[in-house]
This record gives sequence, structure tokens and C-alpha cells, in this order.
Amino acid sequence: MKDVHSPVCRTISTLLSRIGDKWSVLVVTTLGEGSRRFNELRREIPSVSQRMLTLTLRNLERDGLVSRTVTPSIPPRVDYALTPLGESLRCPIQALSDWAVANVDAIHEAQRRFDAAQDEREAA
Amino acid sequence: MKDVHSPVCRTISTLLSRIGDKWSVLVVTTLGEGSRRFNELRREIPSVSQRMLTLTLRNLERDGLVSRTVTPSIPPRVDYALTPLGESLRCPIQALSDWAVANVDAIHEAQRRFDAAQDEREAA
Repeated sequence: MKDVHSPVCRTISTLLSRIGDKWSVLVVTTLGEGSRRFNELRREIPSVSQRMLTLTLRNLERDGLVSRTVTPSIPPRVDYALTPLGESLRCPIQALSDWAVANVDAIHEAQRRFDAAQDEREAA
Repeated sequence: MKDVHSPVCRTISTLLSRIGDKWSVLVVTTLGEGSRRFNELRREIPSVSQRMLTLTLRNLERDGLVSRTVTPSIPPRVDYALTPLGESLRCPIQALSDWAVANVDAIHEAQRRFDAAQDEREAA
């Protein structure tokens, strides 16, 4: 990531922004515990809309991070699971999550200070 | 990140999506090499617009990750640098970048396969 001009670096930052996307992180984290059906994912990530979950799963499947297995029963059963590539993403995502967990208070405190200084400047 | 229902987890995924944001990653990576003025950052991240860079720096400053130092010269000089909290984010961001660098070809290959299968389905 030294040369932020290079096309490779731009590809990578595009990748990062999709992988670091809130819903992708939640889906990868949840599937890290085992495969899930669509409605199971919806129940476990209650804040996600049906549309966003569909879109997120489709992007993760397109990137080769999630597999989609259709069992031709009535009704058809669809299972989502991490691929080996998706499994390999769990560790760096965990590092970022751990950082966020460890620093969430420091960040909230910084935000409070920033907003208070902002209010003061506006009142001046 | 076990209980994706919890408010803490939701706060953290909101954090992740901002920190994992493409421009934030590029700014944190660039400032990791040393402090920069606004126009230096614009030159080093040529794909970013003035508006997005302003917004990204403001969010990073609000989160306590970047400091903004104004020197009252004519014209005033403004320097941006990582705070110690921002420095601590470099390592997990590097882990994610390294993963992306190592797997960019596998992801592109997966995307090609997915799109080809999609085209076949649509042509059928």
C-alpha cells in the first residue's frame, strides 16, 4: 500500500471498502460459526433488510468468499457458508474487530470532545 | 463479535464500516508515513475529491485518529498527522491490506467465474 497511485492499490482499496463494509463483516462473522440459511442470517442480523442481505450475500459469493448451495427440495433449501477464501478473511477481520472493541470507548470520548469544541466554536 | 444483536456489536460494525472505508484506509496508510498538509494528501491520493478528503479527515479527526495542527502563518498552514490511537490502527489495517494483496487474484478469478455463469444463465 506504499504507492497509493498504482492501479493495484486502487483495486485493493476498493476491495477493502467492500470487505470492510458493515454488513459483509457481520455476515462473514456469523458464517464463521457455521453455514446458515437466508432466514437464519436475517434472524441473527436483525438490523439488516432483506434487500441488503441479498445484495451482501451476492457480492460475497461473487468475490468467492461465500458459497451458495441449493438443495432441490420443496421448497428449495439454500445454504450459505464461507469458502476457504472466506475462512482466510476471518483472521484479519477479527484483528480489526478486536481493535474496535478495545478502542470503542476512546473513540466515543474523542467524538464527545470534538462535538463539544464544535458547539463552543459555533456559540462564539 | 459473537452476539451480533448487541448494541456494542452494532456500534463496532458501524465503526468498522467507517474505518474500513476506502478513503479512510488510504489516508491512514499515507499519514502512517508521516504528517501531511491537505494538498500533499490530495496529490498522494489523486483519485480523492477535495470534498471527500475534507469529509474523511474531519471524520478521522472526530474519531480521535488524526490530529489537525494549524500554524497561524500567512497563509495559515494546516498539518494532519496520526494520533497514538490512529497509529494503533495501522497494524490491523495492514493485516487486512496484506490479505487483500495476497488474495486479489483469487477474488478477480472468482468474479470472472461468477459473471460467466451469470451470462450463461441469462443466455439460456
